[in-house]
Amino acid sequence: MTGKVTIAGLGPGADAFITPSVAEAVSHATDVIGYIPYVKRITPRDGLTLHASDNRVERERAAHALDLAADGKQVVVVSSGDPGVFAMAAAIFEVLEENLDKWGHIDIEVLPGITAMLAAAARAGAPLGHDFCTINLSDNLKPWKVIEKRLRLAAEADFAMAFYNPRSKSRPEGFEKALILLKSICGDNRPVIFARAVSTSEETLRTVPLQDTSADMADMRTVVIVGSSQTRTINTKAGAWVYTPRTYG
Amino acid sequence: MTGKVTIAGLGPGADAFITPSVAEAVSHATDVIGYIPYVKRITPRDGLTLHASDNRVERERAAHALDLAADGKQVVVVSSGDPGVFAMAAAIFEVLEENLDKWGHIDIEVLPGITAMLAAAARAGAPLGHDFCTINLSDNLKPWKVIEKRLRLAAEADFAMAFYNPRSKSRPEGFEKALILLKSICGDNRPVIFARAVSTSEETLRTVPLQDTSADMADMRTVVIVGSSQTRTINTKAGAWVYTPRTYG
Repeated sequence: MTGKVTIAGLGPGADAFITPSVAEAVSHATDVIGYIPYVKRITPRDGLTLHASDNRVERERAAHALDLAADGKQVVVVSSGDPGVFAMAAAIFEVLEENLDKWGHIDIEVLPGITAMLAAAARAGAPLGHDFCTINLSDNLKPWKVIEKRLRLAAEADFAMAFYNPRSKSRPEGFEKALILLKSICGDNRPVIFARAVSTSEETLRTVPLQDTSADMADMRTVVIVGSSQTRTINTKAGAWVYTPRTYG
Repeated sequence: MTGKVTIAGLGPGADAFITPSVAEAVSHATDVIGYIPYVKRITPRDGLTLHASDNRVERERAAHALDLAADGKQVVVVSSGDPGVFAMAAAIFEVLEENLDKWGHIDIEVLPGITAMLAAAARAGAPLGHDFCTINLSDNLKPWKVIEKRLRLAAEADFAMAFYNPRSKSRPEGFEKALILLKSICGDNRPVIFARAVSTSEETLRTVPLQDTSADMADMRTVVIVGSSQTRTINTKAGAWVYTPRTYG
């Protein structure tokens, strides 16, 4: 039997956000591989082996998936959100490229998912309704000065911005520096959305004017969306919404 | 009965990319409203009225949805992809804000979908695996000089870039100008992905080095992804992949 690696996005948390395409792939898998909390979302069944591994072992996990597929397994690598946005898909192609002789014959498919910023944006309204950028604020894999440069240029371009991995215990200071920088450049009331664990039972959503933000409003389960200069907040009898109009200037 | 407007994303085309959350909302709707080809994707049934309207009448469609909900209807506004990315969600909040007295009591919910760039990226590999930006290349609602400025700054930030609405019959020249500008700034081999009608029977996917691109490679059903300086192409026995590594510099 020919093996295959399917790299699938489970969406931000709720099963109602898992596409039928991903559910189908999982239902045919012999092996599911991923970070512990994502593998926990998969229902065990006969014939399916679950391989849960810790964070920060993406390369080892990728090699494991390719090895299993080389042995003829139907492997599904599960990511939260979309596997192509700061998740497992790039890690697998990195590892694949380093050993094409060994793994180049393996069939690979990437199945998209609802990425955190889109789930967060939907809860808040439509803050990404105009041009935007998406930045991983972790400096584990890139120098902080690259992040800082991108923040400056993104503000100059007047993009709305979505930040992944804004802050973790091992990197408490980066997001604080990012907020100080944005306050100095944007210097206005623009809305900042802190969306944590969207679509799970622990979901929280908070919108704060930029000048009132502080770093402790985010953790590693938070996606942060900073509005552009055009982003608006409206309060209705039924709720509060943040949106960026389609028209600019 | 209290009315509601649910703004739902149908994903890029295949039913397998429609989330259970959106399918559920459609199954309870009394009225579905949207652009003709998106409403065609909804199966008619007793008790459901389908309202299909032409392109470029987003404001009228939004007002119609809010009026129906004010009359107690369960209205689902359908967008292709994700409703918050260059689609109906922002249009509805724009129109809502202009008449809060009339519509401010209406319950609104936005349900995310698989947006075109993520479906396209998944087919190509993982070109959006590092920081990226998302730009609507239509100058219907913003001046071309804003688009040009954003392209320059995005290239300077070394973002991968996803372009929506790159080219239409009424705007044949914008995408050509964008390509000329990018060739002059990026001046290298970076891969450009033209993904058309992803997940439909008419899907095409083509990756071309920037210097070999031409405007006629895109139309209004194409999403275009331009790699960053780090984006790589790999050819395996099983296929060709484009990905952007997680590590930078």
